[in-house]
Amino acid sequence: MMKRNTLPQQPTLVADWQTLTRTFIRPENEAAKSTLIKYMEQILFGLHDFLKTHVGFTEEISLKELATQFTNSLISKNPEKKLTEVITDLIEDIAPHAVNVASPYFVGHMTSAIPFFMVHLKTIVAALNQNVVKIETSKVVSIVEKQVMAKIHRLIFQKSDRFYDEHIQNAGTTLGCFAENGTLANITALWVARNSLLAPKKGFSGVEKEGIAAAYKAYGIDRCVVLVSKRGHYSFNKAGGLLGIGNQNIIAVDVDKKHKMDLNRLTETIKELKSSSNKTSILAIVGIAGTTETGSVDPLAKLGEICAENSIHFHVDAAWGGPTLMSGKYRRLLHGIEHADSVIIDGHKQFYMPMSCGMVYFKDPTIMDVVTYHANYVNRPGSVDLGIKSLSGSREANSLILDSALKIMGSRGYALLIEHGIETARKFAEEIQKRHNFQLVTTPELNILTYRLYPSHMKQETRVDEKLNEINRKVQRLQREAGHSFISRTTFREPNRLGQDIVVLRCVIMNPMTTIKILQEILDEQEKIYQENFI
Amino acid sequence: MMKRNTLPQQPTLVADWQTLTRTFIRPENEAAKSTLIKYMEQILFGLHDFLKTHVGFTEEISLKELATQFTNSLISKNPEKKLTEVITDLIEDIAPHAVNVASPYFVGHMTSAIPFFMVHLKTIVAALNQNVVKIETSKVVSIVEKQVMAKIHRLIFQKSDRFYDEHIQNAGTTLGCFAENGTLANITALWVARNSLLAPKKGFSGVEKEGIAAAYKAYGIDRCVVLVSKRGHYSFNKAGGLLGIGNQNIIAVDVDKKHKMDLNRLTETIKELKSSSNKTSILAIVGIAGTTETGSVDPLAKLGEICAENSIHFHVDAAWGGPTLMSGKYRRLLHGIEHADSVIIDGHKQFYMPMSCGMVYFKDPTIMDVVTYHANYVNRPGSVDLGIKSLSGSREANSLILDSALKIMGSRGYALLIEHGIETARKFAEEIQKRHNFQLVTTPELNILTYRLYPSHMKQETRVDEKLNEINRKVQRLQREAGHSFISRTTFREPNRLGQDIVVLRCVIMNPMTTIKILQEILDEQEKIYQENFI
Repeated sequence: MMKRNTLPQQPTLVADWQTLTRTFIRPENEAAKSTLIKYMEQILFGLHDFLKTHVGFTEEISLKELATQFTNSLISKNPEKKLTEVITDLIEDIAPHAVNVASPYFVGHMTSAIPFFMVHLKTIVAALNQNVVKIETSKVVSIVEKQVMAKIHRLIFQKSDRFYDEHIQNAGTTLGCFAENGTLANITALWVARNSLLAPKKGFSGVEKEGIAAAYKAYGIDRCVVLVSKRGHYSFNKAGGLLGIGNQNIIAVDVDKKHKMDLNRLTETIKELKSSSNKTSILAIVGIAGTTETGSVDPLAKLGEICAENSIHFHVDAAWGGPTLMSGKYRRLLHGIEHADSVIIDGHKQFYMPMSCGMVYFKDPTIMDVVTYHANYVNRPGSVDLGIKSLSGSREANSLILDSALKIMGSRGYALLIEHGIETARKFAEEIQKRHNFQLVTTPELNILTYRLYPSHMKQETRVDEKLNEINRKVQRLQREAGHSFISRTTFREPNRLGQDIVVLRCVIMNPMTTIKILQEILDEQEKIYQENFI
Repeated sequence: MMKRNTLPQQPTLVADWQTLTRTFIRPENEAAKSTLIKYMEQILFGLHDFLKTHVGFTEEISLKELATQFTNSLISKNPEKKLTEVITDLIEDIAPHAVNVASPYFVGHMTSAIPFFMVHLKTIVAALNQNVVKIETSKVVSIVEKQVMAKIHRLIFQKSDRFYDEHIQNAGTTLGCFAENGTLANITALWVARNSLLAPKKGFSGVEKEGIAAAYKAYGIDRCVVLVSKRGHYSFNKAGGLLGIGNQNIIAVDVDKKHKMDLNRLTETIKELKSSSNKTSILAIVGIAGTTETGSVDPLAKLGEICAENSIHFHVDAAWGGPTLMSGKYRRLLHGIEHADSVIIDGHKQFYMPMSCGMVYFKDPTIMDVVTYHANYVNRPGSVDLGIKSLSGSREANSLILDSALKIMGSRGYALLIEHGIETARKFAEEIQKRHNFQLVTTPELNILTYRLYPSHMKQETRVDEKLNEINRKVQRLQREAGHSFISRTTFREPNRLGQDIVVLRCVIMNPMTTIKILQEILDEQEKIYQENFI
């Protein structure tokens, strides 16, 4: 890697037209082809071994040291190296310092192993290079996208056959749209909700056209707010800022002991906001189906009722938990999601797709009309151009990946993965409770749990939180640096703890190769690190 | 394809744990592996032949007919087909009805052939499955991203070595960020510009926190506007709507005969807006470096001066034209871009990357501080987590593709492609002018031009536009349906034509395999279609 900033030792490469057009089309010679075949074969047919061999998550080289090696701000005029050498460097030199998120010991984040065929699908999608912003650069792919959106819409909302017959290929309506990640999907949902609330009316052309200030004037309000539990994803704050309603108007409602939105606090808040002196409109209430930190699911059915009673847009962030709907056994955990006006689900989370794919779905297939944009050269009115109603412009055909994956796995295949995660998390919670030096902080509802090291000799002491925080911060860091396993950490302000912050370890179980045995090893290692450093 | 909605004829497949975990890891058997190898070899080492063989852009089956075949809204419980069968269907059954954007005869949109190695790079990125929202799921990849952003920043702004030494790996500053497309990049730029304009001050915490209505009150204004030429991309309207300033406040400034922003009209507009009775702030002025419809470049140096004089954020949309900076010969066409406060460039356009990759760059490496977001579990203050300042959340590592491509091609390699486009467009313009039945409507400045069929016998007639529009609309459609070549169409309202709309054919030349001979064939075919249908 150190050579990156020096001149290549070989004869200088020159970019000329002949080489260039050949580079476009095929490897320069048979030797180059062999090198590429070797890597592609490893990646496409031995993905997990490849990642195990090539990608670590060790801190052998610290981030700071690595950074000193990537400080070249000049684009080389001529090719720096031959194609196969650049690709070899990428695999032999860069990949080892990336993070092996596919390891069953990497249970700290919502990124994990993906089925090997997902890489094949991504390869095909890249080769076809369709742009689904418009039909002229995607044709059937836009139609496939509409079909797969109907499948996911049905999974969530379970409307009638007649409903889907009417809308599945309807050029005038849309059941949702693909975004590139949950953040953009949440933004899209709140954008649509904002425009529906501050819609055109007599003497006012709508917030999208006239802007927020004019809209508030037309509607006689001072502000709009969104109510979301304090475990909500930070993208809601971002959406509030971006959409011009202000991120201070994303109101964090307290959670109960199970980290679910506290319904009493919610109804009190609504009551306060609705008092006549308070010129506030509630733009949306958000229910979370699998919070990022604890995996808890808000009481969706109750939230749906409250929203219906108060005519408030009900948005569900199921970025994480959405695919649980495919499990007959655990679908009930998301009971009430069908009452939502909008729902987001991430493809790169529990649909096990490669980075990155978000989606947003709307109960009402005409609600996205409030975010319609046309241009003279594409996205003409009346066309099937998917870019007419979407936050993004040019988009890759992630829908082809999801469509194929659903056919390969079946909902039962996905259910098995999801059930494995939920059930392994439960076993892990039991294991933590059995150990004297640990404390389970949040019981897993889905497949995420939090806990902390809480050495038994400290259990009789008072005011130990700060000391425990230090222990947990350090153990988490040292374990990550040791490079065998990775658990993330986060911080809670416990409602019943006088505002004391507590640092917890966070475990996300989605990798089917993560067994209870592996999780036991992770606890063992944490205990060992603790004993080596604090005893 | 008709079988898609019926039950598979083979014995029912069942999702069980053993099959499932095997599916995760490798093909089910040697036969399956052989099938996959066959396709992957075709795609990875014979991309252009593969696309030619498998993907058409014919209308043999109309979109409407296709749509009737994708109307299944149910996710199958068990696998619908074996993995290799699903992939075979995708290639044999779906791909033929996608659009072969790689054909040298497909010159209608900004999507074209990509070098075969781009598919290899995308495959590697998918396999590594890094999430660059945070360092814990990307490590060195975030560092590579910072380096490649410095390279593009330098290409645009040409700051000093010292500047890049300071910022290239600085965890506290950022030279820009990746987005997923030009639309999201433009939105990011205007989001940052909005927050910089309506910044915190005494008694006001800033627009991001308090929202637009409070910001206007604090600043004593009624509205913000963005000035962009009437050839501006429709994403600016979308950004205006999304950001709460209202899309009617994206003001389209007239263009001159060369479709560049009319500077007199611009200065008049600024003067009007700044008059004391008009409580309006100008949020940004946009210069376009390669308009979508005509490829024209606004007078960037002059725009830069005007913005500097008036302390207005100067944004340049170089989504299309940005890579022209790599050509020593034509770099001058973008003269003045270095004065911009923000610039966007798309990776999937003239960096020839696969769908989809946008980027936004800022002259001031601290300006993105106004869109900072943290969370407890990721993106902690002081970390290198790239997700702290970005519109998106989870993001794939497109930066690895761009970084490798720059090394493989060198700036000279890209320059050759870009020069080919510009010079072929000029030859094509000459060819059009030579032909009696055509009219060149816009002379190419970069590699985009527009023209129309204008039969010589009509050249003496008056009031022919409506008839010509009909001819051009029909010829364009029939040519597309014939399936040999594709030119897009758009509509101009000519300033000196009493508001008459004229329909033009639009040609975008970026494919290195597109020769003047091919373009002549396209004209021949258009003439033939005209004669068969109108004579």
